[in-house]
This record gives sequence, structure tokens and C-alpha cells, in this order.
Amino acid sequence: MNTCLLANDEYWMNIALSFAKENIGLTGVNPSVGAVIIKDNQLLSYGITQPGGVPHAEIVAINKLTQDELKDATLYVTLEPCTHYGKSPPCINKILASNFERIVISTLDPNPLINGRSTELLNNNDIKFTVGVLENKAIEINQGFLKRIKTGAPFVTVKVAVSLDGKIATYKNHSHWLSNEYSLKFAHLLRFRSDAIMVGKNTYLIDKPKLSCRLPGINDKKLLKVTLDRNLKELYPSDDNLIVYTLAKSNQKNIISLNEENFLEDVLNDLGARGINNLLVEGGGKLITSLLKCNLIDKLILVTVPIIIGNDGIPMIENLQIDKINNSFRLKNIETFNLKGDNIQTFIIENKE
Amino acid sequence: MNTCLLANDEYWMNIALSFAKENIGLTGVNPSVGAVIIKDNQLLSYGITQPGGVPHAEIVAINKLTQDELKDATLYVTLEPCTHYGKSPPCINKILASNFERIVISTLDPNPLINGRSTELLNNNDIKFTVGVLENKAIEINQGFLKRIKTGAPFVTVKVAVSLDGKIATYKNHSHWLSNEYSLKFAHLLRFRSDAIMVGKNTYLIDKPKLSCRLPGINDKKLLKVTLDRNLKELYPSDDNLIVYTLAKSNQKNIISLNEENFLEDVLNDLGARGINNLLVEGGGKLITSLLKCNLIDKLILVTVPIIIGNDGIPMIENLQIDKINNSFRLKNIETFNLKGDNIQTFIIENKE
Repeated sequence: MNTCLLANDEYWMNIALSFAKENIGLTGVNPSVGAVIIKDNQLLSYGITQPGGVPHAEIVAINKLTQDELKDATLYVTLEPCTHYGKSPPCINKILASNFERIVISTLDPNPLINGRSTELLNNNDIKFTVGVLENKAIEINQGFLKRIKTGAPFVTVKVAVSLDGKIATYKNHSHWLSNEYSLKFAHLLRFRSDAIMVGKNTYLIDKPKLSCRLPGINDKKLLKVTLDRNLKELYPSDDNLIVYTLAKSNQKNIISLNEENFLEDVLNDLGARGINNLLVEGGGKLITSLLKCNLIDKLILVTVPIIIGNDGIPMIENLQIDKINNSFRLKNIETFNLKGDNIQTFIIENKE
Repeated sequence: MNTCLLANDEYWMNIALSFAKENIGLTGVNPSVGAVIIKDNQLLSYGITQPGGVPHAEIVAINKLTQDELKDATLYVTLEPCTHYGKSPPCINKILASNFERIVISTLDPNPLINGRSTELLNNNDIKFTVGVLENKAIEINQGFLKRIKTGAPFVTVKVAVSLDGKIATYKNHSHWLSNEYSLKFAHLLRFRSDAIMVGKNTYLIDKPKLSCRLPGINDKKLLKVTLDRNLKELYPSDDNLIVYTLAKSNQKNIISLNEENFLEDVLNDLGARGINNLLVEGGGKLITSLLKCNLIDKLILVTVPIIIGNDGIPMIENLQIDKINNSFRLKNIETFNLKGDNIQTFIIENKE
């Protein structure tokens, strides 16, 4: 039975969402979900989707309690419980067997195998439920998973450190270190929250970035490395952790040949098919410009560093042949904070076609 | 007698400073000063330097009170009272005749005709005084006056509206309107607080800016217009409100010929000699670049607009031949606020030589 929002629903869902946030970037193809179990307005148990994607949050939370404790409790879960056999049996079975009084779901799972099936089953079993509590927060936490399920492509976040005059390096391609040590740590946190990291060929060859997540205490973060090299005149190592997309033919296992038409779209779809939810793009200017022109950027994070390099520096965005201000790309700033002088601004592109 | 800070000194000085702020940009060659008179911890009177520069703040405040009221009161004044005959007799005479118990001064006047003379006279007359209360605020309010008195040149504020990628116009020189209506109003407020406004020749000829202060209720703001045209191949109107600096020879009254060596420094010194305290520079990129290279920018106000124009747009800063990040111009952000999407950031240049 679908019931309306109760007094503390947002309070408890917020806590479930905080748990969900913790494992973003660690749950592989699965979403990072949080669950809390409440009785008499007291927190009895909590769960988070575990690294690798299983067990799911609801199971972790339920398994901590006895049947007596579970009886007449309320389950808050940030994403609709699964109703199909994946890596594990459907969570909804365990939920139905737990004698909950009520289930509160933040957002439904757009996966066609699930979407709304769970609430149908709850209804059929006369269990009260509410859907949509703090839904925007749940959508943001799983922006990658939800986009991949809906479109087949990962959520694309572009992060780039620029000078006040929009340059990413000097004319001599020197860029170490544009941003300060705090922004560098923030950049590694973004890597930690991502499933794959992509850079253009020039950045890969000139900067030779390690493309790894280097944060104290983090040693085993799995991060697929991706680069694009249309002509494949360079040699790339045969490495399960590196994928090179190209227009050329190659027999090498980690080099993927694609057609010129819709090249970038096909790159993203291939990454989606590999289960990549969140793709982080770290430059260079040529790749960012191509993604921008193809309207493939979901989020742009600018790390603006308070320096001036001059117009002979390497630009963050290449020529766009925009004639009038009205025809420029218009962005919307959705978050800003300052890290000891470096200004971190997150944008979405407003006039994506 | 020099006394230490008393309990409410900062409180009352802050109020005097607020009054001082009101007339910035209206007092001509004179500083904008605020004064309050306090007795028994109550505000008896206040004064601000009047438009045009006279009467001075102290006189305005004193003239509102009787000798009885003034007796044993405390005068708070944001700048040292004058001790010489200018447009008006020395304020210190009126102060000495007013039987104040104590005088509190925020900052001394660096004018060699005054500097410390007033406190000497207070001392000789056995009147208690304190100097240096909230001095940084007083210095900021009269940054233009103080710089001109010390160096002969006005305080140079550069204001420029740029895209996220550091462009001030499209490749077709189209820039209307880059910033939003709120930032445009802010730009006019900056003009209101300035004594002169300078743009490069190209901006003057291509944009044909009115270079006037257009704010509701403001009709008579005096603002000297300045442009630079080294070769003087263009015709300029003979206009008392416009000055054109050039390397060429000219008999026209408002066209000033200077030498090539130290051209920009001489422009500023000439403006200083004309009593200009605050100069606002509004572009274009060529002029801003020249000022930056000559280390002549005191404050840079960036109005960053959330659009992307592309690298073929007109840059805010031209080529600088900077090879390494360490050799770039390093700035310090001293204030940031957001006007409905446009980000207003104020910087000082840190590594001025």
C-alpha cells in the first residue's frame, strides 16, 4: 500500500544516503546503495553495498538483526530493491520474509528488469511503502549507474585545472604543478569515485600520467585507464588495465577499433558495455573540446588556479568558431568551493542540443 | 597625550568608516573621510567629506553641535585631520577649539604637509589621542588618495568580464552582452567609485563605449575618460572630459604627447598630477596585458561569466612567452561573490617585481 511521507522519513533517508555515498566508486557495475532499519524511531541497523557490488545494502542491514527485531520495523533504502537474480538472489525476497511494517525507497531503479516490480510485490503482500523521499540526492549519488542503465553510456565528468586566462599549460607544454597540493588531492578523490579515467593521446604521451588513485590508505582502487589514438602511430603496452580506442586496425587485445562516424559516442557506449558507470576525463584540451562539441559532457569541474599564463599557453578549449556571445556554450554553476586559493567550480552544460 | 585603545573604539570607528565609504568617488582630489562624535557612549553627531571634497567630515560633524555638547566628547575620524590651508582652513584649528576630551584617528595622512602634524598639535594642547584603530579599513577606503599622495600615480583597478576560457569577445569582436545585467550594474558601481576610466584604443573605437556611470538616480557623476593611441591615426573629439595619450605630436588641448620610454608610467603620473585618485581600466586585452607586464595593476576584478567561447575568441591577456608554470603571474584572491551566475573575483598581483 502506497503511503504518504511520514514525519522522520527525510531524516532517516538522509542517513541512508550518507551511507550510500561512502562506497561510490567501489561497487563496480552495481550502484552504491545505503539502507537503514528503524523501529520506534531508533536506528537498529544499517548497510551499504559492499565493494565489488555484493552483498547489497538491504541484505547487509537485515542480516545484522533477528526476526523479532525486524518485525514491524521500517526499512529505508536509497534505491529500489532488486527483484531479479544477478550476482545474488533478489533482495525483495528477503525483504518480504522480514515482516517489515513499511519500506521507504528514495528512487526507483530504471533497470527494466526491476523498475517498479518491487513496489508491485510489496503491494501484493500488503506491505506499506513510500517512494520518492529525497529522490534528487539518490539520483545524484548514482548518476553514473542510472545514466548507464538508461542510455548505455557512462556519466562523463571532465576535470581540468586552468589558469585564470583559461590555459592548461605553458606554450612549452609545462603544467607541473598548476594546481596546489589540496586540489591535487581533490583530483585523486575524483579518481577514487570513478570507474575509469580517460585522457587524450597527447596528454598520455607527453605528460605520461600514472592515471592511478594515490591517496593515503588507498592501495587497491580499480581504475580502468582509457586513451584515444585515432591513427595509432604510437606503441601502447599490452595491459588489461589500459584500453586504447582507435580508427586503425589492431590485433592487440586492449586496442579497440571503431568507425570514424560517432567515434566518441561509440567509445562511451563500449565503456558502458564494460560496466563503467563513472568516467573521469582529465584532458587535454583537444579531447575536452571534442566532447564539448559532441555534447557528451555531463559535468565539468574547473579547478581555477590564480595564475596568468598568457594567450600563447595551451588552451583548455580549442577554436569553436563561435561568432556571437549568444551562440557560445552556456554553463550552469551547481557547486563552488575554495581550496586554499584554487577555486573548484562544478558546471553542467545548459545548452546541450 | 597618546592613549591606548579603549573598549568601544573599534565599534565607533567602524561606524565612521561606514560613513567614509559612502562618498568614495565623489570627493575629487580629496579623500573620503568619515567622522563621528561620541559622549557617554552615545552618538551625538556624524560627518562625511562632502561631494567635491569640502567641507571635511570633522567640520560637518562639529558644526551640528553646540560648544556645550562638544565639551569632553570624543571625535572618531577615519583619516588624520588636516593641518594646512587647502580649499578650507585646517580642521585641526576647529578641533582644538572644541574642547574634545579625546581624538581617535584610524590612519595618518601621508601628505608631507600633514603627516603626524595633527597629533603633535594635540599633544602640545594636552588633548588625549589614539592612532591606528581599524587602520587597514581606512587604508582600503582611501587606497586611491593614499597611493597618489605617496607615489604620484592613481590606484589602478582593472575590471574585465571573461568567459570561463578567458575570452573577452568572440573572434568577430562581439561581446554584447557577455556579463549579466547584475554584473553590468556592478560595473557601473565601480565607475561610480572611480575618478577616471581608461580603455585601449581598439575598445574605444570598436565598442564605442559611453564610459559613463549609468545607475538609477545618478545623473551627475564626474568621470574623466582616458584612452591611449600611440600613433594617433584616428580623429578624436575635442572634449574636456576625454584625454588621449599618444606618442605623436598634436596641438589639440585634450591630446597629450608623451615619450615612448615609460609611456604607461607617464600616463599614470599625468593622471595623478590631475588629481585622479582612482583609475578604472576596462580593457581591452592589449592594454591589460601591457599594464600587467609593467606591473602597474593594483587590483584585478574578474567578472567570470559561465560561458565558453573557444580559443579563437579575443583573449583577456595576450601572449606572455611564459615557459614554466613557476614563471607565470601569481595572483591572490582577496574577495569573491556571485551575482546570479557571474562570479566576481578580486585579485592582487602577488609577484609584482
